[in-house]
Amino acid sequence: MTSPLRLGIAGLGTVGVGVVRIVRQQAKMLTTRAGRPIEIVAVSARTRDKDRGVNLSHYDWEDDPVALAKRDDVDVFVELMGGSDGPAKAATEAALAAGKDVVTANKAMLAHHGQALAELAESKGCNLRYEAAVAGGIPVIKALMEGLAGNEMTRVMGVMNGTCNYILTRMQNAGLTYEEAFAEADGLGYLEADPNLDVGGIDAGHKLAILSALAFGTRTNFDAVELEGIGAITIDDITQAADMGYRIKLLGVAQMTGRGLEQRMSPCLVPASSPLGQLEGGTNMVVLEGDAVEQIVLRGPGAGEGPTASAVMGDVMDIARGLRLPVFGQPAETLADARAANSTVPAAYYLRLQLIDKPGALAKITAILGDAGVSIDRMRQYGHQDTSAPVLIVTHKTTRADLSEALAAVRETDVVLADPVAIRIEEV
Amino acid sequence: MTSPLRLGIAGLGTVGVGVVRIVRQQAKMLTTRAGRPIEIVAVSARTRDKDRGVNLSHYDWEDDPVALAKRDDVDVFVELMGGSDGPAKAATEAALAAGKDVVTANKAMLAHHGQALAELAESKGCNLRYEAAVAGGIPVIKALMEGLAGNEMTRVMGVMNGTCNYILTRMQNAGLTYEEAFAEADGLGYLEADPNLDVGGIDAGHKLAILSALAFGTRTNFDAVELEGIGAITIDDITQAADMGYRIKLLGVAQMTGRGLEQRMSPCLVPASSPLGQLEGGTNMVVLEGDAVEQIVLRGPGAGEGPTASAVMGDVMDIARGLRLPVFGQPAETLADARAANSTVPAAYYLRLQLIDKPGALAKITAILGDAGVSIDRMRQYGHQDTSAPVLIVTHKTTRADLSEALAAVRETDVVLADPVAIRIEEV
Repeated sequence: MTSPLRLGIAGLGTVGVGVVRIVRQQAKMLTTRAGRPIEIVAVSARTRDKDRGVNLSHYDWEDDPVALAKRDDVDVFVELMGGSDGPAKAATEAALAAGKDVVTANKAMLAHHGQALAELAESKGCNLRYEAAVAGGIPVIKALMEGLAGNEMTRVMGVMNGTCNYILTRMQNAGLTYEEAFAEADGLGYLEADPNLDVGGIDAGHKLAILSALAFGTRTNFDAVELEGIGAITIDDITQAADMGYRIKLLGVAQMTGRGLEQRMSPCLVPASSPLGQLEGGTNMVVLEGDAVEQIVLRGPGAGEGPTASAVMGDVMDIARGLRLPVFGQPAETLADARAANSTVPAAYYLRLQLIDKPGALAKITAILGDAGVSIDRMRQYGHQDTSAPVLIVTHKTTRADLSEALAAVRETDVVLADPVAIRIEEV
Repeated sequence: MTSPLRLGIAGLGTVGVGVVRIVRQQAKMLTTRAGRPIEIVAVSARTRDKDRGVNLSHYDWEDDPVALAKRDDVDVFVELMGGSDGPAKAATEAALAAGKDVVTANKAMLAHHGQALAELAESKGCNLRYEAAVAGGIPVIKALMEGLAGNEMTRVMGVMNGTCNYILTRMQNAGLTYEEAFAEADGLGYLEADPNLDVGGIDAGHKLAILSALAFGTRTNFDAVELEGIGAITIDDITQAADMGYRIKLLGVAQMTGRGLEQRMSPCLVPASSPLGQLEGGTNMVVLEGDAVEQIVLRGPGAGEGPTASAVMGDVMDIARGLRLPVFGQPAETLADARAANSTVPAAYYLRLQLIDKPGALAKITAILGDAGVSIDRMRQYGHQDTSAPVLIVTHKTTRADLSEALAAVRETDVVLADPVAIRIEEV
């Protein structure tokens, strides 16, 4: 029997408590699988006196996570506090500087400081593992970094914010407005304290930035993620997309193009019959495409005590078993500073226009689209609503630049009543 | 730069050629990711003079795979010959005995000899890796052994024979008979030389035996897999299952019960709206359920040059990066010799009976079912065909033992014209 692997856990929210539970309840199984015991030596959280439903009396308590991170008797610092900066980052850096391995669920910290943390970890010969940061219980980091290591990845996609998918699914299935579905999700406690992290696509954007770095060997660059939330999606869009055989998802897409790395987190139409289109409620899905493997789809719970703790424990077990890997699967100094190249991959678009109901309105619009090089694949005009006529258009493939030019011209006409809605149709 | 990892590849069929292609074409990427070059030093196959579409002139040729496995300049023996015994097993044993790591795609060899090979590998401190043996390009071995290592697994399921799923999908979507769909698959080259390996469930059963060992910490025991192929499935069953909201899949299910390990590979009804129900064509899907992670679904190509070579390369890269793991995720001597406990988990069943069209026939059948403790959830009687009347029954949950007793009694009556069809409805 080799020496135990000793954990210090900072952050005792849902996930931290889940990790404590697994370590306590599955001690024998973990020891058999790792070849050594997994032990918790100390914990830290903002408030000590709180009933968390688990017995913490066997562990030392540290008020200061940095002190916890530096303890001589801690082998692995488990960071479950969250937040891109502040105590999480300070304690992670302290642990790495002290030569300790780190396991974290902190997507914001990695999206913003991935490169610097990877350099620090590797300079110290430490692991920094973060399976729980992306898509909850789905072992997608492992799949991408290890299982698909023989592939040149071509595209990575994901529905990685369960709250947004819940809202969109409720709009679709129960006919709720965005505001009603948002209120329902809020009532269920699904939303972050700052809801814009969810519905603005930021949380999912953090995850995409991490997957991009892994897939394409680039430095994490969250600022280059083109972000668009779901707040502008109406029940009309959902219904009309469904009529045409599509679903609307907040979809992250990363792909390397001739002009640089494209990272988008935005509402997209996907075929209703595709795995992404069929994904309902809070479940997450990641699609990984590589030159050899073609396409792998991974589906599972994106949040919650058990699933997220499962991901944390996967990393802990890797470390217990002696795995050593660069933080992003290749040495940090070899990661490329990829040029951001948003919206270079052409796509078909769904357009919804509210036209004034008068002769020649539609002709004016189609002429503008044609002049900008945006050709029309399908068009539907619905029954008049008072004095306006909703028109739906599915374009042939076009660049976002051409489309934006066309929509700017459309806005300047006297025949549209509202800002045109344009949603990308992603081929999946 | 550390020393190169030197491969000897035995077997130059589709997968072997795929591996050669990746090693040649992605040398730089692989070196960056592994931290060392990956090189092929020697290859072996049954016939030397054959155009395989790749240049093999840089590699030594060995007629004898055992000689290849023992070469001093080979670090990793890559076994892609296939077959549970014979040269594949001899060469694998020779490589392990010589202290070399082995990567194999050989499901039959592992299903039949997994325990002995694991003991040999671990006694020599060698890796024996087999990602490509199960579900092609899907990194399911890695997910189960590493990513979900913090979970006590509760159930593992999978559609893992693309040929069977292709046949069933064609019956469903094109209305073909089993014989027609089988002939089509044969014409497309989808069937093994012995088609019973596919349609008899043997190939998929091998894969299930491997997943079972990993999930439940048991010795591989292929003989304990309850096997039932798809040959008895008729277009009627497919159509009628669809009418009730189900699809028929050749589904592998392994779960640990109070009475032992249950391993089944058999046609099952699954809800049409579930990920398994939506799986069409040759694609594979594995569902992993654990106490913490709840449910993970992995979907991807189950065969083909690129996907299977991707899986082989995942293992090669793990070894290049220094990963060391017991063959089944825990030391071979700790794997339990689980009692085989087939058909202990109750389920609802779909029954199709061909009754003689005379008064009292149905009453007689329902009385027999009731006497055996099999209660009826739903029943449909279709229009008479000549002098017989097809009756469909969905039972409430029952044990296979009770059902078998009932069906034996049904067969002995004078009111059934054909052997009753009984297909399990798996809750997914």
